[in-house]
Amino acid sequence: MYHHVKKLMYDVNVGEADPRFGKMLLEQFGGANGELAAAMQYTIQGWSCDDPERKDLLMDIGTEEISHLEVVGALIRMHMMPIKKALDQAEQDPIVAVTGGGGLNLFNSAGNPWTADYLKISGELEVDLRNNIAAEARAKITYERLMHLTDDVGTKEALQFLMTREITHMKAFTAALDSLGTGRFSIGKLPPTPGVVDEYYNDSTGEGPLGKDGVGNWIGKDGLHVAETPDFIHAIAASIHEGEELAKKANGAGGARRGTRVPSHRKTA
Amino acid sequence: MYHHVKKLMYDVNVGEADPRFGKMLLEQFGGANGELAAAMQYTIQGWSCDDPERKDLLMDIGTEEISHLEVVGALIRMHMMPIKKALDQAEQDPIVAVTGGGGLNLFNSAGNPWTADYLKISGELEVDLRNNIAAEARAKITYERLMHLTDDVGTKEALQFLMTREITHMKAFTAALDSLGTGRFSIGKLPPTPGVVDEYYNDSTGEGPLGKDGVGNWIGKDGLHVAETPDFIHAIAASIHEGEELAKKANGAGGARRGTRVPSHRKTA
Amino acid sequence: MYHHVKKLMYDVNVGEADPRFGKMLLEQFGGANGELAAAMQYTIQGWSCDDPERKDLLMDIGTEEISHLEVVGALIRMHMMPIKKALDQAEQDPIVAVTGGGGLNLFNSAGNPWTADYLKISGELEVDLRNNIAAEARAKITYERLMHLTDDVGTKEALQFLMTREITHMKAFTAALDSLGTGRFSIGKLPPTPGVVDEYYNDSTGEGPLGKDGVGNWIGKDGLHVAETPDFIHAIAASIHEGEELAKKANGAGGARRGTRVPSHRKTA
Amino acid sequence: MYHHVKKLMYDVNVGEADPRFGKMLLEQFGGANGELAAAMQYTIQGWSCDDPERKDLLMDIGTEEISHLEVVGALIRMHMMPIKKALDQAEQDPIVAVTGGGGLNLFNSAGNPWTADYLKISGELEVDLRNNIAAEARAKITYERLMHLTDDVGTKEALQFLMTREITHMKAFTAALDSLGTGRFSIGKLPPTPGVVDEYYNDSTGEGPLGKDGVGNWIGKDGLHVAETPDFIHAIAASIHEGEELAKKANGAGGARRGTRVPSHRKTA
Amino acid sequence: MYHHVKKLMYDVNVGEADPRFGKMLLEQFGGANGELAAAMQYTIQGWSCDDPERKDLLMDIGTEEISHLEVVGALIRMHMMPIKKALDQAEQDPIVAVTGGGGLNLFNSAGNPWTADYLKISGELEVDLRNNIAAEARAKITYERLMHLTDDVGTKEALQFLMTREITHMKAFTAALDSLGTGRFSIGKLPPTPGVVDEYYNDSTGEGPLGKDGVGNWIGKDGLHVAETPDFIHAIAASIHEGEELAKKANGAGGARRGTRVPSHRKTA
Amino acid sequence: MYHHVKKLMYDVNVGEADPRFGKMLLEQFGGANGELAAAMQYTIQGWSCDDPERKDLLMDIGTEEISHLEVVGALIRMHMMPIKKALDQAEQDPIVAVTGGGGLNLFNSAGNPWTADYLKISGELEVDLRNNIAAEARAKITYERLMHLTDDVGTKEALQFLMTREITHMKAFTAALDSLGTGRFSIGKLPPTPGVVDEYYNDSTGEGPLGKDGVGNWIGKDGLHVAETPDFIHAIAASIHEGEELAKKANGAGGARRGTRVPSHRKTA
Repeated sequence: MYHHVKKLMYDVNVGEADPRFGKMLLEQFGGANGELAAAMQYTIQGWSCDDPERKDLLMDIGTEEISHLEVVGALIRMHMMPIKKALDQAEQDPIVAVTGGGGLNLFNSAGNPWTADYLKISGELEVDLRNNIAAEARAKITYERLMHLTDDVGTKEALQFLMTREITHMKAFTAALDSLGTGRFSIGKLPPTPGVVDEYYNDSTGEGPLGKDGVGNWIGKDGLHVAETPDFIHAIAASIHEGEELAKKANGAGGARRGTRVPSHRKTA
Repeated sequence: MYHHVKKLMYDVNVGEADPRFGKMLLEQFGGANGELAAAMQYTIQGWSCDDPERKDLLMDIGTEEISHLEVVGALIRMHMMPIKKALDQAEQDPIVAVTGGGGLNLFNSAGNPWTADYLKISGELEVDLRNNIAAEARAKITYERLMHLTDDVGTKEALQFLMTREITHMKAFTAALDSLGTGRFSIGKLPPTPGVVDEYYNDSTGEGPLGKDGVGNWIGKDGLHVAETPDFIHAIAASIHEGEELAKKANGAGGARRGTRVPSHRKTA
Repeated sequence: MYHHVKKLMYDVNVGEADPRFGKMLLEQFGGANGELAAAMQYTIQGWSCDDPERKDLLMDIGTEEISHLEVVGALIRMHMMPIKKALDQAEQDPIVAVTGGGGLNLFNSAGNPWTADYLKISGELEVDLRNNIAAEARAKITYERLMHLTDDVGTKEALQFLMTREITHMKAFTAALDSLGTGRFSIGKLPPTPGVVDEYYNDSTGEGPLGKDGVGNWIGKDGLHVAETPDFIHAIAASIHEGEELAKKANGAGGARRGTRVPSHRKTA
Repeated sequence: MYHHVKKLMYDVNVGEADPRFGKMLLEQFGGANGELAAAMQYTIQGWSCDDPERKDLLMDIGTEEISHLEVVGALIRMHMMPIKKALDQAEQDPIVAVTGGGGLNLFNSAGNPWTADYLKISGELEVDLRNNIAAEARAKITYERLMHLTDDVGTKEALQFLMTREITHMKAFTAALDSLGTGRFSIGKLPPTPGVVDEYYNDSTGEGPLGKDGVGNWIGKDGLHVAETPDFIHAIAASIHEGEELAKKANGAGGARRGTRVPSHRKTA
Repeated sequence: MYHHVKKLMYDVNVGEADPRFGKMLLEQFGGANGELAAAMQYTIQGWSCDDPERKDLLMDIGTEEISHLEVVGALIRMHMMPIKKALDQAEQDPIVAVTGGGGLNLFNSAGNPWTADYLKISGELEVDLRNNIAAEARAKITYERLMHLTDDVGTKEALQFLMTREITHMKAFTAALDSLGTGRFSIGKLPPTPGVVDEYYNDSTGEGPLGKDGVGNWIGKDGLHVAETPDFIHAIAASIHEGEELAKKANGAGGARRGTRVPSHRKTA
Repeated sequence: MYHHVKKLMYDVNVGEADPRFGKMLLEQFGGANGELAAAMQYTIQGWSCDDPERKDLLMDIGTEEISHLEVVGALIRMHMMPIKKALDQAEQDPIVAVTGGGGLNLFNSAGNPWTADYLKISGELEVDLRNNIAAEARAKITYERLMHLTDDVGTKEALQFLMTREITHMKAFTAALDSLGTGRFSIGKLPPTPGVVDEYYNDSTGEGPLGKDGVGNWIGKDGLHVAETPDFIHAIAASIHEGEELAKKANGAGGARRGTRVPSHRKTA
């Protein structure tokens, strides 16, 4: 059962309204990593949770995120004000201006409607806590980027508060995950196949504009090693060779096109 | 640059085709946590990544996931075969049968089209690695659940291989995150506000059918403590009291309705 | 600012769990006219509202709907229980079973993710109150239909409570609209063009399997009359005649095809 | 059966093409409250309707809305012309310019594809007529806002015609609803629970930046009164008190953190 | 300007209602290749078309497709009738039964809302005619499949009429494309690069469960030949070899894991 | 099984980064006719294909399109660079800047997430090849339009390469379709109804701002002729006449409104 109090969790003061920034803020209102997404993800996980202590955690944080949504909404309203008053500013965000009359709606910064596809709810506690840690990390970096995009002091202060809370939640979800005591790589009940689980496949090779092939310093950690699967490698190499022969044959005996060179503008090949 | 070899990464043998199970398998083909989602999430993160070692990691695993998509697709094709041949089975999945002629398409088990909203790509390495750890955890539990839903040995073996690889990737992403050396709660560059960052808000209270209010054993970890913000608590309590007075007044002097009782069937309140 | 109490607004008792009914109930959880849609529509209208009295109304009812969402979620959880325990029932709803582990998610009965496209928020109070009256009417009829689809007494009682509340809200929104005193057909500030506003166009004519052409008893109400626009009617009739002539010409002088008759199975034409 | 005549229902003259305005006009073409939404909502309700008189009404207006869609499309085409000719204007709306070659498509002003989720079709006449009244109200206010956003006389005239027609339809739908004689709060067949149906819950209380708690003048109308449910109010208040005690305990005996004050920047609490 | 006549373009008689088949028929009502998609694709192309003759063609066929939508809708209504009357059949399609009251809505067979993403409208006539030829081909095969899924004679007859019309339209669009005289591979104005345009890349090689590498009999047609680009091929082969060396090095000097073999169940590699 | 090589299929050089152009390029990355759509459409058709030769074709081209996606992604990254570095440019594309940190994601130019609804996969080879020919035509014209929107030489060269390849693929798909030998209008197995299949319905008539009624020079091709179905035409004309009479009657005996004229601004009717 919910109760609403007519106070914001954090007082919002906007010095100068900036509809362009208001549009960006929509990411945290109706966007993929915004406050509604956080509120719904944790609350619905909480309602399904059978573990009383972690259910309480999910409800505490889920409820706080609804209050955050309200704070972000108040910020956006203040920044969007000129769209409502001076209609010539409406083109900053036509869907807000024309369809919404300058008011709030559950859109992101590109005008996309919020969708439950943003949520990661697995029904498995050790998975959901990882989902939530990742969600908080995304929300934190989004607030940080938004803080770089405004000079308004009141706005920055509110964003700093909201950004800070994401780290608080990250701590709480991490502690709750640790307290499960299931280990870093144990998910569900079925164990992975020994041997295969430690094989790292080097499926992207070579060096070029897309980087260089380098096996990172994580090889050797937790048993990981590069799989030297000759069959695997040879299968690819062999198939390429076969293909080359086939191409020669297909182009015909005369081989008139055998000399075709890569056109000059196809510089890579 | 990509090359395809006409071999599956894992041989697929299906003893008895089961269209209902094929429909469920679609979750791992065109579903929110399926192989295309994994392939696209890691590959696109890899293309944007400026850190050569971790870029290589993202490309290796992103490429492997495309090969997994192919394996899952082969499994679904085999299980869906009866839909194509015996048309009376088509009602198991009309969209596959009628629109797709029994062939593959990028839908999930409910016939929803795959959408990029499933992806979590932040453009920040320490965030994306957490996104990927969570994604692998979700994929792992999904394969585990699917294994409980089939008795076909060949299918189970292929799913066991795919499930195992998710743990391999979880290990690799975790090691890569550790090797960044940024700490468990450090995201981006802006620090959270000290003090506030350690306050846990008890925003869901009381005991009832939805569980009991219990502050978990994570209080005390990493500095977390329950915020005793009297103003905060009192604001809510005070507003409830005010509302109560207002209600009395609104219903009028005679107070004829003051004695209204909660109807018997509203058992909770 | 929101607070959650660990009590349901209405106690839920389910005698016999029925996953098929649980799936139908999803309409009122993550469906187009469900409780989240109501909660978000009223709450976000409330946050944008500048009229203090009606803002309070929107917040009161918006908050109640979040509590309703919780009640519906509890009902669904109980009905879905068998999906979680006996996995052979999972095919009733694969996306809930496989991806969600039997837990809740914001889907409707067809597994579609909830989307903000369901919301009708115009930023104009006299419009939004009409949106809300319509929304409550939809929610009411949906609960009524669901009550016909279950025999479980506890479920029926909870649905009766929720259904009743929709009428309560309909009353409140209607009274709030009346109290604006703007009249039944006054929306915004710009007046419609006199004359044109009273013309009813008879754009669907004739009689057949799709009904008969009959101008309803609303003609004469509020000035409405059928527009007798000869130009309009004649333009269509004339163009049909021209087309007929053109067709004769196009088919050629010989007119070999002039005698083509409608094939017997095209019975209507 | 439909017939098309190569005339617009309203002649369109655009003095000066303005792609930015053309983009805004897309709201009424492929937007949530646009002409396709109206046409489809009424037409499909009409096809399902078993009441011959109101079926005729739905078909008349549904058909007129297709003609309106054509008029709006003609307006957009004229305003978008510069995008097609002078390609440097293409950035006003890349998706129209690049993918559509400057032509029409069923997008809204944010480039979102039209979706049937915009429609409100309930299969219940007294509900659908309310849906339609609300839809016309939304369409009316949208045209009004668009008229404020252009100075082009020809455009304004066409929008005035279209805006006027929405009020015409509102009148017709209202008269049709009245003529059903079912009353303002009667939906479907099942009655609401007496007593509960008249209780208004004061679920948002207090005063602050989000407004003040005031019970509107609708209390007393149609039997509505504020529910004075002590259990309900006390449950929340009691749970808050319990939570406060729990917090003290959780933070430990020493109470080192008992003195923690709300950080200065959290101004509200 | 449109006019509706209360006759179906084709009389519909359904012997025995079958809700499961009705659900499948939804593919042709609100599905990706259904009648609304066809109607909107051609009509909107027509409204944007500057070529008067082909504009007329697009309007003729676009209008006919709206009449087809009406016929399909009538068929579905008849097949869905039991859902409305005998509520125990509602579980065949909960979204139709519960939200729609058994009436029509713009969903496909999986309950997905119709979306303008189904449309292919390019704003370029020679492209759009190809889009339409493909669309008609899809619609034709969908009707054919549906005819295999019902034994009801009246339904089959109506589907045969609709299926036939798709071929009619295919003929008309093809003739219109031919009459443009632009050639089979001429799209737009910019010419492709000679040489490169004739190179066929053999990007999938080898033989296995996914088929065999065989260059089809289209090599040689229209100048196409297999590109023998040694650099291209060698780049891949070389990068694989490099990767192999790197793997050896990464696993360490001892080479303890060098002997790791592919686990027995990974049969392919 | 897939392998990735750290080389681009075509070297990308961007002289001057232009975020606005980068945003437009997103159409070919995550847009409806972009490279992922092509890659997925052909690859998934290929996986389902039972015809070994054409399966190979689909896999060859499907794989090449993944390499193209990588090239387009590299171009976008270079053009988007300023968004990442100079944050004041972020408003060019907030969703990329704020949520994505300036990196790639699967969005189109309007910020819409990529969806599998873009794909046309029918499970019928003669249909899918037509789908693919149309898809290549769309991709070709999109590249052409993009080339008009940039002056950067390096960008133009890369787009020229990609545009050329679309024609290559169009040739290959066309040759593969021809080689099936099924004829231009043969889809599936069920034949259309003779007679009806050759009737062209003139469903849009008259002359006006929307063009003139002219039966194109395709009449006479492949047996097509205009259907002179008097019943059909007369049904419409008759129903219009009936409607006119009805209107007169409905407005009452006095006929006060009989003289109502079309308001001056409704110029068409």
